[in-house]
Amino acid sequence: MGKPYDVMASTCPSRTVLHRIGARWTIFVITALADGPMRFIQLKTRIQGITPKVLTETLRALETDGLVIRAAHEENPPRVEYALTSLGESLWEPLQAVREWAESHVPDILAAQRRAK
Amino acid sequence: MGKPYDVMASTCPSRTVLHRIGARWTIFVITALADGPMRFIQLKTRIQGITPKVLTETLRALETDGLVIRAAHEENPPRVEYALTSLGESLWEPLQAVREWAESHVPDILAAQRRAK
Repeated sequence: MGKPYDVMASTCPSRTVLHRIGARWTIFVITALADGPMRFIQLKTRIQGITPKVLTETLRALETDGLVIRAAHEENPPRVEYALTSLGESLWEPLQAVREWAESHVPDILAAQRRAK
Repeated sequence: MGKPYDVMASTCPSRTVLHRIGARWTIFVITALADGPMRFIQLKTRIQGITPKVLTETLRALETDGLVIRAAHEENPPRVEYALTSLGESLWEPLQAVREWAESHVPDILAAQRRAK
Protein backbone atom coordinates (compact mmCIF):
# COMPACT_ATOMS: atom_id res chain seq x y z
CA MET A 1 0.00 0.00 0.00
CA GLY A 2 1.31 3.44 -0.88
CA LYS A 3 1.20 6.52 1.29
CA PRO A 4 -2.40 7.62 1.87
CA TYR A 5 -1.59 11.15 0.67
CA ASP A 6 1.04 12.15 -1.86
CA VAL A 7 1.44 15.71 -3.16
CA MET A 8 3.01 14.38 -6.36
CA ALA A 9 -0.33 12.82 -7.37
CA SER A 10 -2.37 15.40 -9.23
CA THR A 11 -5.71 14.40 -7.68
CA CYS A 12 -4.45 14.13 -4.09
CA PRO A 13 -6.24 16.51 -1.68
CA SER A 14 -2.89 17.26 -0.03
CA ARG A 15 -2.23 19.48 -3.06
CA THR A 16 -5.07 21.76 -2.05
CA VAL A 17 -3.68 21.87 1.48
CA LEU A 18 -0.21 22.68 0.16
CA HIS A 19 -1.63 25.37 -2.07
CA ARG A 20 -3.34 27.06 0.88
CA ILE A 21 -0.17 26.88 2.98
CA GLY A 22 1.74 28.42 0.10
CA ALA A 23 -0.77 31.22 -0.43
CA ARG A 24 1.13 34.48 -0.35
CA TRP A 25 0.13 35.77 3.12
CA THR A 26 -0.48 32.55 5.07
CA ILE A 27 3.03 32.40 6.53
CA PHE A 28 2.81 36.01 7.71
CA VAL A 29 -0.48 35.55 9.57
CA ILE A 30 0.61 32.26 11.18
CA THR A 31 3.92 33.85 12.22
CA ALA A 32 2.25 36.95 13.68
CA LEU A 33 -0.37 34.96 15.62
CA ALA A 34 2.29 32.64 17.05
CA ASP A 35 3.06 35.51 19.47
CA GLY A 36 -0.52 35.36 20.80
CA PRO A 37 -4.06 36.43 19.84
CA MET A 38 -4.33 39.72 17.99
CA ARG A 39 -6.95 42.15 16.82
CA PHE A 40 -7.32 42.89 13.12
CA ILE A 41 -5.59 46.27 13.40
CA GLN A 42 -2.65 44.74 15.30
CA LEU A 43 -2.20 42.11 12.61
CA LYS A 44 -2.33 44.76 9.92
CA THR A 45 0.37 46.77 11.69
CA ARG A 46 2.59 43.72 12.31
CA ILE A 47 2.40 42.49 8.69
CA GLN A 48 3.76 45.48 6.82
CA GLY A 49 2.23 46.12 3.41
CA ILE A 50 -0.82 43.87 3.66
CA THR A 51 -4.06 45.56 2.62
CA PRO A 52 -7.20 45.26 4.80
CA LYS A 53 -8.97 43.40 1.97
CA VAL A 54 -6.22 40.81 1.58
CA LEU A 55 -5.87 40.39 5.35
CA THR A 56 -9.63 39.79 5.62
CA GLU A 57 -9.55 37.21 2.82
CA THR A 58 -6.49 35.46 4.28
CA LEU A 59 -8.05 35.26 7.75
CA ARG A 60 -11.29 33.88 6.30
CA ALA A 61 -9.44 31.17 4.35
CA LEU A 62 -7.43 30.21 7.44
CA GLU A 63 -10.64 30.07 9.50
CA THR A 64 -12.28 27.83 6.89
CA ASP A 65 -9.28 25.50 7.03
CA GLY A 66 -9.40 25.37 10.83
CA LEU A 67 -6.03 27.07 11.34
CA VAL A 68 -7.27 30.32 12.86
CA ILE A 69 -10.19 31.03 15.17
CA ARG A 70 -12.05 34.31 15.47
CA ALA A 71 -13.19 35.10 19.02
CA ALA A 72 -15.68 37.91 19.70
CA HIS A 73 -15.44 39.08 23.33
CA GLU A 74 -18.63 40.62 24.65
CA GLU A 75 -17.29 43.89 25.89
CA ASN A 76 -18.25 47.46 25.26
CA PRO A 77 -17.08 48.21 22.63
CA PRO A 78 -17.00 44.57 21.42
CA ARG A 79 -13.50 43.18 20.94
CA VAL A 80 -12.69 40.67 18.19
CA GLU A 81 -9.46 38.70 18.30
CA TYR A 82 -7.85 36.16 16.02
CA ALA A 83 -5.83 33.24 17.39
CA LEU A 84 -4.16 30.07 16.15
CA THR A 85 -6.01 26.82 16.72
CA SER A 86 -3.92 23.82 17.81
CA LEU A 87 -3.85 22.81 14.13
CA GLY A 88 -2.54 26.28 13.24
CA GLU A 89 0.07 26.03 16.00
CA SER A 90 1.29 22.74 14.54
CA LEU A 91 1.92 24.49 11.21
CA TRP A 92 4.05 27.17 12.85
CA GLU A 93 7.20 25.07 13.19
CA PRO A 94 7.57 23.99 9.52
CA LEU A 95 6.71 27.51 8.36
CA GLN A 96 9.32 29.04 10.66
CA ALA A 97 11.96 26.78 9.13
CA VAL A 98 11.01 28.16 5.71
CA ARG A 99 10.99 31.73 6.99
CA GLU A 100 14.40 31.30 8.61
CA TRP A 101 15.78 29.80 5.41
CA ALA A 102 14.48 32.82 3.44
CA GLU A 103 15.88 35.34 5.92
CA SER A 104 19.29 33.65 6.15
CA HIS A 105 19.83 33.00 2.42
CA VAL A 106 19.00 36.42 0.98
CA PRO A 107 22.66 37.18 0.08
CA ASP A 108 23.02 33.81 -1.75
CA ILE A 109 19.87 34.35 -3.79
CA LEU A 110 20.73 37.98 -4.62
CA ALA A 111 24.24 36.92 -5.72
CA ALA A 112 22.80 34.18 -7.95
CA GLN A 113 20.34 36.63 -9.49
CA ARG A 114 23.18 39.06 -10.27
CA ARG A 115 25.19 36.26 -11.92
CA ALA A 116 22.17 35.26 -14.01
CA LYS A 117 21.78 38.74 -15.51
CA MET B 1 20.69 46.27 15.99
CA GLY B 2 17.76 44.32 14.61
CA LYS B 3 17.89 41.20 12.48
CA PRO B 4 19.51 41.97 9.11
CA TYR B 5 16.53 40.48 7.25
CA ASP B 6 12.93 40.37 8.44
CA VAL B 7 10.06 39.14 6.27
CA MET B 8 7.62 41.27 8.26
CA ALA B 9 9.24 44.44 6.85
CA SER B 10 7.60 45.30 3.55
CA THR B 11 10.82 46.41 1.84
CA CYS B 12 12.96 43.47 3.01
CA PRO B 13 14.43 41.42 0.13
CA SER B 14 13.67 38.24 2.11
CA ARG B 15 10.05 38.79 1.01
CA THR B 16 11.04 38.23 -2.61
CA VAL B 17 12.89 35.08 -1.59
CA LEU B 18 9.88 33.85 0.37
CA HIS B 19 7.62 34.59 -2.57
CA ARG B 20 9.78 32.48 -4.88
CA ILE B 21 9.88 29.60 -2.38
CA GLY B 22 6.10 29.82 -2.09
CA ALA B 23 5.55 29.86 -5.86
CA ARG B 24 3.12 27.09 -6.69
CA TRP B 25 5.51 24.50 -8.20
CA THR B 26 8.80 25.26 -6.42
CA ILE B 27 8.27 22.63 -3.72
CA PHE B 28 7.47 19.95 -6.32
CA VAL B 29 10.63 20.54 -8.36
CA ILE B 30 12.89 20.71 -5.27
CA THR B 31 11.30 17.51 -3.92
CA ALA B 32 11.66 15.64 -7.21
CA LEU B 33 15.30 16.69 -7.74
CA ALA B 34 16.21 15.68 -4.17
CA ASP B 35 16.21 12.09 -5.53
CA GLY B 36 18.95 12.99 -8.02
CA PRO B 37 19.42 14.81 -11.35
CA MET B 38 16.57 14.44 -13.83
CA ARG B 39 15.79 15.17 -17.43
CA PHE B 40 12.90 17.46 -18.29
CA ILE B 41 10.63 14.60 -19.32
CA GLN B 42 11.37 12.70 -16.10
CA LEU B 43 10.47 15.74 -14.04
CA LYS B 44 7.27 16.21 -15.99
CA THR B 45 6.30 12.59 -15.35
CA ARG B 46 7.18 12.73 -11.65
CA ILE B 47 5.23 15.95 -11.00
CA GLN B 48 1.76 14.95 -12.11
CA GLY B 49 -0.32 17.67 -13.71
CA ILE B 50 2.42 20.22 -14.42
CA THR B 51 2.38 21.59 -17.96
CA PRO B 52 5.62 21.81 -20.01
CA LYS B 53 5.30 25.60 -20.10
CA VAL B 54 4.97 25.93 -16.32
CA LEU B 55 7.76 23.43 -15.67
CA THR B 56 10.05 25.40 -18.01
CA GLU B 57 9.21 28.67 -16.25
CA THR B 58 9.68 27.14 -12.81
CA LEU B 59 13.06 25.64 -13.74
CA ARG B 60 14.20 28.96 -15.19
CA ALA B 61 13.22 30.85 -12.04
CA LEU B 62 15.00 28.29 -9.85
CA GLU B 63 18.11 28.52 -12.06
CA THR B 64 18.07 32.33 -11.78
CA ASP B 65 17.87 32.05 -7.99
CA GLY B 66 20.77 29.59 -7.92
CA LEU B 67 18.72 26.66 -6.57
CA VAL B 68 18.83 24.48 -9.68
CA ILE B 69 21.57 23.94 -12.25
CA ARG B 70 21.08 22.85 -15.84
CA ALA B 71 23.82 20.56 -17.13
CA ALA B 72 24.13 19.77 -20.84
CA HIS B 73 26.09 16.55 -21.39
CA GLU B 74 27.83 16.37 -24.74
CA GLU B 75 26.46 13.10 -26.00
CA ASN B 76 24.71 12.07 -29.16
CA PRO B 77 21.86 12.88 -28.85
CA PRO B 78 22.74 15.63 -26.33
CA ARG B 79 21.40 15.00 -22.83
CA VAL B 80 20.25 17.84 -20.58
CA GLU B 81 19.76 17.27 -16.87
CA TYR B 82 18.57 19.41 -14.02
CA ALA B 83 20.04 19.08 -10.52
CA LEU B 84 19.86 20.83 -7.18
CA THR B 85 22.76 23.14 -6.29
CA SER B 86 24.01 23.00 -2.69
CA LEU B 87 21.78 26.02 -2.03
CA GLY B 88 18.82 24.10 -3.46
CA GLU B 89 19.70 21.10 -1.32
CA SER B 90 19.65 23.27 1.78
CA LEU B 91 16.07 24.28 0.97
CA TRP B 92 14.95 20.67 0.74
CA GLU B 93 14.72 20.06 4.49
CA PRO B 94 12.39 22.96 5.40
CA LEU B 95 10.23 22.26 2.35
CA GLN B 96 9.91 18.59 3.26
CA ALA B 97 8.64 19.56 6.69
CA VAL B 98 5.91 21.61 4.99
CA ARG B 99 5.12 18.81 2.57
CA GLU B 100 4.89 16.26 5.39
CA TRP B 101 2.62 18.59 7.34
CA ALA B 102 0.35 18.92 4.30
CA GLU B 103 0.23 15.18 3.66
CA SER B 104 -0.40 14.29 7.30
CA HIS B 105 -3.07 16.92 8.06
CA VAL B 106 -5.39 16.44 5.08
CA PRO B 107 -8.17 14.88 7.21
CA ASP B 108 -8.04 17.77 9.75
CA ILE B 109 -8.28 20.40 7.01
CA LEU B 110 -11.07 18.58 5.16
CA ALA B 111 -13.02 18.19 8.42
CA ALA B 112 -12.63 21.90 9.19
CA GLN B 113 -13.80 22.82 5.68
CA ARG B 114 -16.91 20.66 6.11
CA ARG B 115 -17.69 22.33 9.44
CA ALA B 116 -17.29 25.77 7.85
CA LYS B 117 -19.89 25.09 5.17
